[in-house]
Amino acid sequence: MSYSKEEELEGLLVENSKNDWYNILSLRYEMRLIVRRLVLNIAMSLDGFIARKDGSYDWIEGHGTDKYDTVLQFDNQKFFNNCDTVVMGRKSLEDCPLEMIEGYQEKQFIVASHTEQTDYGNVRFVRDIIGEIMELRSREGGDIWLFGGASLVQDCLEAGGIDHLIIGIIPTILGDGIPLFASLLEEKKLLLVESTVTDGIAMLRYDIRR
Amino acid sequence: MSYSKEEELEGLLVENSKNDWYNILSLRYEMRLIVRRLVLNIAMSLDGFIARKDGSYDWIEGHGTDKYDTVLQFDNQKFFNNCDTVVMGRKSLEDCPLEMIEGYQEKQFIVASHTEQTDYGNVRFVRDIIGEIMELRSREGGDIWLFGGASLVQDCLEAGGIDHLIIGIIPTILGDGIPLFASLLEEKKLLLVESTVTDGIAMLRYDIRR
Repeated sequence: MSYSKEEELEGLLVENSKNDWYNILSLRYEMRLIVRRLVLNIAMSLDGFIARKDGSYDWIEGHGTDKYDTVLQFDNQKFFNNCDTVVMGRKSLEDCPLEMIEGYQEKQFIVASHTEQTDYGNVRFVRDIIGEIMELRSREGGDIWLFGGASLVQDCLEAGGIDHLIIGIIPTILGDGIPLFASLLEEKKLLLVESTVTDGIAMLRYDIRR
Repeated sequence: MSYSKEEELEGLLVENSKNDWYNILSLRYEMRLIVRRLVLNIAMSLDGFIARKDGSYDWIEGHGTDKYDTVLQFDNQKFFNNCDTVVMGRKSLEDCPLEMIEGYQEKQFIVASHTEQTDYGNVRFVRDIIGEIMELRSREGGDIWLFGGASLVQDCLEAGGIDHLIIGIIPTILGDGIPLFASLLEEKKLLLVESTVTDGIAMLRYDIRR
């Protein structure tokens, strides 16, 4: 008796379903069950903070001159257009009104929340955000923007759920604040696929090496 | 009665000598008393670590392809040639034998140490490393390489003693380790003057905005 590649992988998937997300994800990749990318696009200070302790981010700005800009520029518009879904933590939703996000009317917002919340408009609250992201990534659609905050990013990284990172390094050493990265059990090896500079902000784009 | 610019600044310098280093440094700059730059040149993971908890740094490597290299490359040789003095912490000296540093025979090594140590060859131990750096910077000479480690970097940043940063961002999220940056009382605004990529390592060069 023999199994097809798909049946074999499906068997492994079921067998591994009690193991960590990472194994499942690797298998899903092999099975091409993941058809959409989860993209982290976020700004951080050179010392790795995404906001001050009080949540403020008025320091997120360039160095005040385009003198050192690269010829190639990161295409933010293209990124926005490619994303039809935004995933964020509840705190991020509070700190950043949706109106600030370009074209928010046309995007679906999935917000992680530990407590019961009432959905409205294009905003849906979910408890099992990792499960939801796994589900989203297996369905057809555009890129999914992982907006933040820090704990959601950490959960997604730990779960091996991030496919692409766009990190804007703000030309500031903040000294203190809310860190983007928290401790991880496992190193993640990256592939730097683009590096551009806009007004002193280094835009680094990474794929995950698998 | 009137004072020359120099007399005025000298007066301010004395007046401020009991204040923080930053004030003194700003004045020294204005007086052109600082003639050499203290340059931090160090590699860190995307999540800001310079070594694993056990001090190991075998993860400091590129992503394995020159496909995404920039045309302009960071000139490491020029950097080495420009530095005639290396400042490091005692732990860094233990972790990295001097022989690993190119042209070490022609450079002076100043090593921070809280305990009494015997100088040898071109290695000199000092207790008041910040005072020593201030002194060095006011004398003629080449650039001074701030080698690390983390606590010395923090002391120098806090004292406003760093003039230029060359940060090589290794394409790895390490997850845990010894962080480059610790908390600072004051934000430092930077000017990104060069950004290059070599084998997936983003080399970011910053001046301090003053």
